[in-house]
Amino acid sequence: MGLPPQPLRPLDPDFVADLVRRCLAEDVGRGDVTTTAVVTSDATGLAHIESRGSAVVAGLDVAAACFAATGGDSVKWSALVTDGDRVERGDILATIQGTLSSILTAERTALNLLARMCGVATMAATYASAVAGSGTRVVDTRKTMPGLRVVDKYAVRVGGCYNHRSGLDDGVLIKDNHIMAAGGVSAAVERARARIQHGHLLEVEVTTLDELEEAIGAGADAVLLDNMDPQMVASAGARAGGRVVLEASGGIGLDNIAAYTATGVDLISVGALTHGAPHVDLSLEVQAWS
Amino acid sequence: MGLPPQPLRPLDPDFVADLVRRCLAEDVGRGDVTTTAVVTSDATGLAHIESRGSAVVAGLDVAAACFAATGGDSVKWSALVTDGDRVERGDILATIQGTLSSILTAERTALNLLARMCGVATMAATYASAVAGSGTRVVDTRKTMPGLRVVDKYAVRVGGCYNHRSGLDDGVLIKDNHIMAAGGVSAAVERARARIQHGHLLEVEVTTLDELEEAIGAGADAVLLDNMDPQMVASAGARAGGRVVLEASGGIGLDNIAAYTATGVDLISVGALTHGAPHVDLSLEVQAWS
Amino acid sequence: MGLPPQPLRPLDPDFVADLVRRCLAEDVGRGDVTTTAVVTSDATGLAHIESRGSAVVAGLDVAAACFAATGGDSVKWSALVTDGDRVERGDILATIQGTLSSILTAERTALNLLARMCGVATMAATYASAVAGSGTRVVDTRKTMPGLRVVDKYAVRVGGCYNHRSGLDDGVLIKDNHIMAAGGVSAAVERARARIQHGHLLEVEVTTLDELEEAIGAGADAVLLDNMDPQMVASAGARAGGRVVLEASGGIGLDNIAAYTATGVDLISVGALTHGAPHVDLSLEVQAWS
Amino acid sequence: MGLPPQPLRPLDPDFVADLVRRCLAEDVGRGDVTTTAVVTSDATGLAHIESRGSAVVAGLDVAAACFAATGGDSVKWSALVTDGDRVERGDILATIQGTLSSILTAERTALNLLARMCGVATMAATYASAVAGSGTRVVDTRKTMPGLRVVDKYAVRVGGCYNHRSGLDDGVLIKDNHIMAAGGVSAAVERARARIQHGHLLEVEVTTLDELEEAIGAGADAVLLDNMDPQMVASAGARAGGRVVLEASGGIGLDNIAAYTATGVDLISVGALTHGAPHVDLSLEVQAWS
Amino acid sequence: MGLPPQPLRPLDPDFVADLVRRCLAEDVGRGDVTTTAVVTSDATGLAHIESRGSAVVAGLDVAAACFAATGGDSVKWSALVTDGDRVERGDILATIQGTLSSILTAERTALNLLARMCGVATMAATYASAVAGSGTRVVDTRKTMPGLRVVDKYAVRVGGCYNHRSGLDDGVLIKDNHIMAAGGVSAAVERARARIQHGHLLEVEVTTLDELEEAIGAGADAVLLDNMDPQMVASAGARAGGRVVLEASGGIGLDNIAAYTATGVDLISVGALTHGAPHVDLSLEVQAWS
Amino acid sequence: MGLPPQPLRPLDPDFVADLVRRCLAEDVGRGDVTTTAVVTSDATGLAHIESRGSAVVAGLDVAAACFAATGGDSVKWSALVTDGDRVERGDILATIQGTLSSILTAERTALNLLARMCGVATMAATYASAVAGSGTRVVDTRKTMPGLRVVDKYAVRVGGCYNHRSGLDDGVLIKDNHIMAAGGVSAAVERARARIQHGHLLEVEVTTLDELEEAIGAGADAVLLDNMDPQMVASAGARAGGRVVLEASGGIGLDNIAAYTATGVDLISVGALTHGAPHVDLSLEVQAWS
Repeated sequence: MGLPPQPLRPLDPDFVADLVRRCLAEDVGRGDVTTTAVVTSDATGLAHIESRGSAVVAGLDVAAACFAATGGDSVKWSALVTDGDRVERGDILATIQGTLSSILTAERTALNLLARMCGVATMAATYASAVAGSGTRVVDTRKTMPGLRVVDKYAVRVGGCYNHRSGLDDGVLIKDNHIMAAGGVSAAVERARARIQHGHLLEVEVTTLDELEEAIGAGADAVLLDNMDPQMVASAGARAGGRVVLEASGGIGLDNIAAYTATGVDLISVGALTHGAPHVDLSLEVQAWS
Repeated sequence: MGLPPQPLRPLDPDFVADLVRRCLAEDVGRGDVTTTAVVTSDATGLAHIESRGSAVVAGLDVAAACFAATGGDSVKWSALVTDGDRVERGDILATIQGTLSSILTAERTALNLLARMCGVATMAATYASAVAGSGTRVVDTRKTMPGLRVVDKYAVRVGGCYNHRSGLDDGVLIKDNHIMAAGGVSAAVERARARIQHGHLLEVEVTTLDELEEAIGAGADAVLLDNMDPQMVASAGARAGGRVVLEASGGIGLDNIAAYTATGVDLISVGALTHGAPHVDLSLEVQAWS
Repeated sequence: MGLPPQPLRPLDPDFVADLVRRCLAEDVGRGDVTTTAVVTSDATGLAHIESRGSAVVAGLDVAAACFAATGGDSVKWSALVTDGDRVERGDILATIQGTLSSILTAERTALNLLARMCGVATMAATYASAVAGSGTRVVDTRKTMPGLRVVDKYAVRVGGCYNHRSGLDDGVLIKDNHIMAAGGVSAAVERARARIQHGHLLEVEVTTLDELEEAIGAGADAVLLDNMDPQMVASAGARAGGRVVLEASGGIGLDNIAAYTATGVDLISVGALTHGAPHVDLSLEVQAWS
Repeated sequence: MGLPPQPLRPLDPDFVADLVRRCLAEDVGRGDVTTTAVVTSDATGLAHIESRGSAVVAGLDVAAACFAATGGDSVKWSALVTDGDRVERGDILATIQGTLSSILTAERTALNLLARMCGVATMAATYASAVAGSGTRVVDTRKTMPGLRVVDKYAVRVGGCYNHRSGLDDGVLIKDNHIMAAGGVSAAVERARARIQHGHLLEVEVTTLDELEEAIGAGADAVLLDNMDPQMVASAGARAGGRVVLEASGGIGLDNIAAYTATGVDLISVGALTHGAPHVDLSLEVQAWS
Repeated sequence: MGLPPQPLRPLDPDFVADLVRRCLAEDVGRGDVTTTAVVTSDATGLAHIESRGSAVVAGLDVAAACFAATGGDSVKWSALVTDGDRVERGDILATIQGTLSSILTAERTALNLLARMCGVATMAATYASAVAGSGTRVVDTRKTMPGLRVVDKYAVRVGGCYNHRSGLDDGVLIKDNHIMAAGGVSAAVERARARIQHGHLLEVEVTTLDELEEAIGAGADAVLLDNMDPQMVASAGARAGGRVVLEASGGIGLDNIAAYTATGVDLISVGALTHGAPHVDLSLEVQAWS
Repeated sequence: MGLPPQPLRPLDPDFVADLVRRCLAEDVGRGDVTTTAVVTSDATGLAHIESRGSAVVAGLDVAAACFAATGGDSVKWSALVTDGDRVERGDILATIQGTLSSILTAERTALNLLARMCGVATMAATYASAVAGSGTRVVDTRKTMPGLRVVDKYAVRVGGCYNHRSGLDDGVLIKDNHIMAAGGVSAAVERARARIQHGHLLEVEVTTLDELEEAIGAGADAVLLDNMDPQMVASAGARAGGRVVLEASGGIGLDNIAAYTATGVDLISVGALTHGAPHVDLSLEVQAWS
């Protein structure tokens, strides 16, 4: 409990290097024709990345990797803050010193990635503080930006929220369409129970308290309460009596999350952590060069 | 003029297949353990994708490719609308019929991609209608979602706006930092002019009317007017007298774009087309199965 | 319960195609110089794959994919048995008809893969029948053949045993070294509990009954009983009283598994399912050609 | 002659790095969730790899590359033995010192690869000593583990045996099916002779002494004597009189290899070197940490 | 003007490393069996690359990368000349010192790449000097060696000529077949004008002076004069009067280029720069070893 | 002997598809902006590929694959000649019918590949006819175009010459530098003999008749006679007396090859087959469209 839960899992450097290589290739293509034409290859500079608003920082290593990819050892990155820090308008996140052409070629890719990750972390921080002090955790969903699942989920953790499944292979979550196809909650849970791999949790989505009972009876480990109002979530909690993990989901935002938290539900999942997070406004400024 | 300008360039099917494969791999990982445990492999179903709000559609082929990737010929996609169409809450975009497990496994990836692309197209359509009837074009920037540059830019075109450079290799755009490094507008433009590849345009960013003159004198093909107010843009237009293409950029949104359009500037670039476009809310519903 | 638990999850055709392409490339390199020099490209043949011993079949789709990769539609594969079937010496598993050069080029790769997979399935079947009728499941480990994890685990399921984690990302299993690093069972479990992703099970390895209590108290979902004799496993079961899933591991083989099964332990993990399974002896014979 | 023939060809470091990356990805997937949750990122440790039985060591560089891939310079590998050395139960093969989390994440992949390679080298050493002092060489076959051809063949060399073809592109070997398709030994050899690339040997499989004559007459460089008993192999040797290289193949094991060696045959090929080699039992123990 | 126009854009080191890895893999395959069998792994040597004729050097970094790929830090490359220098028979381009086996394994790949690049640069230098002193630039075409587009175009720049489009995505060039499909020069140019991405130039191919007028009227930025004789090119120049960039193309070689240059045309494109450039004869000699 | 030796080995369709994809990507990049802007997507056309000179055709399948890659089933390729045929100026090699945009996008890549391959085949045919009627074969070298080794060697076979090693892994060829490093011909051959893989030939380069004797004595299978004049090659043949294969190499061209052929040497290797072959001049003409 005294243990700080974040960061759960730092980003793997090899993964970051691959992501950055892919994103740079998308922007640079056959080469940065402007910089190579106009900036001499021995020009050096000092630049910084500045926030133009309030934000929670996430993704410093990813931005650093962009400059490392274009400049190698000739570019020195110094972060002035740490992932998870809150910055305000005008605050400097990092300085970059070295070969000017490398800095300019990486600039847009670095800012695009960092602005996205800070955006998600900032949104997550808002939700985390909305449930602070309760025993409820806010978790993300699979509504992430295609291709950015891993960094989106990292930013969620940085912001103080928690991760749900990484993907379809990472735990069983039986939803309405699965239940219909199986012919009911019990049948679906039993099929999954008979085939589940050891190590995976079995969660099932329900819409009524009767289905909740059915799910528990059939052996579910966790139950997702779909689109229930706070009162009904509270009733579900009373019924479950701690036998399963309960997750509230659907239509929960900053305006009504307190009512859900008050029910003592274990988890609240919020798609907007990732699909509704606006980019943070960042800019790279060259301060000096030679 | 009578020629419909859109879509400029349909997405390359091989590119789409690769993108979809990568995005599906991110979500499916070692396999959809829930669907394979609960849904029998011969179950079939009929599903549709429905909009939960007003939107301009973009990305139907991308969504279709997701179901084709998981289900091959066993899944039939039928689009009821076309990229560029406006849909309202409750409208059906497409139906998917076939192997139920393939539909469920592809669902989230298809929706994530489609919701992003519709979001960008909807934003672009708003801007396009804001300049309709004028000779001014709204163009995008390189502030796209990392990894989604190509589909973001496609959605911009679908929404009725225009593309600026695809990347750093695709035309010369000399910005403030390049100018400082070269020692002035003339020096920068001359360096680029001496080295530019035939086929590329030479554009330079300026902040004053004097720099505009300098740019034209040094041989620029286009000039980006950085953070100028409408009056100054109008003056720039008068000065340039048609000798170069003029682009207004910086701080231009729906609230003030009309004033810029009124200056007769050729292009207005808007980063928010891609970095500020919220996802459209879409859902996949299974209607029937057997 | 009446539901046949196998196969839990068929192999993904795209995965199989990739695996086969990689394995064929390894064997064929720049081309099958013998076949192209000696066999005319229009020669056709009829071949079959025959078992030279008793075995449980697994991997027919993988073998089929080898011939499809070299011959496309010009080669027709007909399986005479199904994954999970028992065959005896002299039984035919499948026939292959079509372009003779395609058959000969794929022969060795197909046999190598099939012989491995049948070997694992046969070993798994032996263990499955050793625990048949009890409530205990035999599960595999991560001691699989490097590069063949997915097909090894598939063959385990075909043989009637169950899968443990697919990899290090797929559920928490705290082992002795983790416990030492954390400073004890409770500390390790609490750290993991505070950080675990929703959807993952938390299992911890213990060597004494006191540690078992500690693990349950700290919130473990499952406990691995390391190198305990059957009596101690039985005591652990009594202590746990159904509060956690219990897994026996270490030094358990066909000679002593019955004693473990008798304790009512939930799971027994056996590394030899994959690291100790000998290849089944198979041969491809060309019956006729023209 | 005084030159030690082994190792013929060390493994290419780039190849090893690629293999290890692929095998680690298979095991680690999206990340080692246990280690990252439980072990602090600055914890360091000292571990060693110990043999639990008698074995010939092969693959030390491959195991080392696993720890280098997860830990980079923060992990120091020290081998105490060399590929080709014989170790006994309790002997230490190597120590690994450094970041504990990197050691634990790489552990299983390193052991799986090393245990396989030591297994093959140990089997090869047994065969090599069975023919020691004679002029006969034991060679491997293409019955290797799919995906591990290169390291299997390396381990064969380490154990003191020799490599046959690396793959189908690497020398002509005309087998029974090729002969049937060509219409006889002479026809097959002549076709190959007319088309063979300079640099490749031409070998043909025969089952009778008449076919041996035919093969030599048609220009074979080597002849594989298929399933002949030692007496017949001896007769073949007499007939050939040194005009071609002779290889005995089929049904030769440790129980009868001496009789074949006594015939003076040049090569004996043994599939069991690779398809019948059990893993060596190895374990990684953490000795100390901080 | 005082600014040396070359090298326009140095080759990207990551691109070079990838190219070299691919080319080495093509030559080395499973390993350099001769060198590993005959040269001990600790032998070192000093080698140099010598020209056997007159040539303009291009590609030194590419050759260096070959030795770096096989030998890493154990091989030291020292270039004695610079890309763009003219060398004569017997001149040394570079020395390579270090592990002999690494030098010998990389030798052929390094020489093949360097000989190609020097060949193109030498051809380009001949054309560049043929137009020296005039305002006309010689540009390349897309008739490059498949797979070597980037290095071919680099060598063109090194030799003193200029690049046309890098590929089909890099500027609009409307050719005869496009014009026919669109129904005339005006129609084709208007279509392109309506859809062109900002940053791209619009060039159109014409065969008559009337078409030239039509192209200019429809808004072309540049016009390619196809297969016109010098007189007609001169007339085209008079007609265009500086309103568009003019490019002469088709049937122009060293024998008649002066006549075209005399017309004052802006660009002359020459396919032979890349498709007609013979390899320069280079050899690697080992001077000393130990 | 009555058996036509060519084509020894057709190109693997998967290899061709990969090569074509890579080459198209190089040219098309983010898309063919001209064709998509100007040619409507439903326009169809009929085009043909015509030779502008005398040539031996090679690479029809490669060219066909280019159009298949851009147009799929919507484009129909019909070859009017076969690889190995001689065509003259004005002859049609193939027609392509279907979607006009697909034809235009693939045009340049298809022509670049075909022109190279025809160039090599034409050169090879000239050499093949120069030795026709003798027992001597002309073989290629590793001086191929980087990235095009496989198609270059295919074109050599189409032209009627023969292939030497595919790469460094494909047979032992001990050259001067290896001999120096080993300390002499005997030492080098013995080292290789002790380590050679069964299936590979052992060839050694010599410069004197004494070295020839030494090579044969040490067990070489083949000997490369480096830069010897025809008389010396004849003497070498007499000395060798059929004990080894003899290859003449160095300084042999069309002007002096007859003298070498007259010596009865087995092989003559000619680097110019691949490094000195000019592109054949081909053009694609659209005949009709709608």
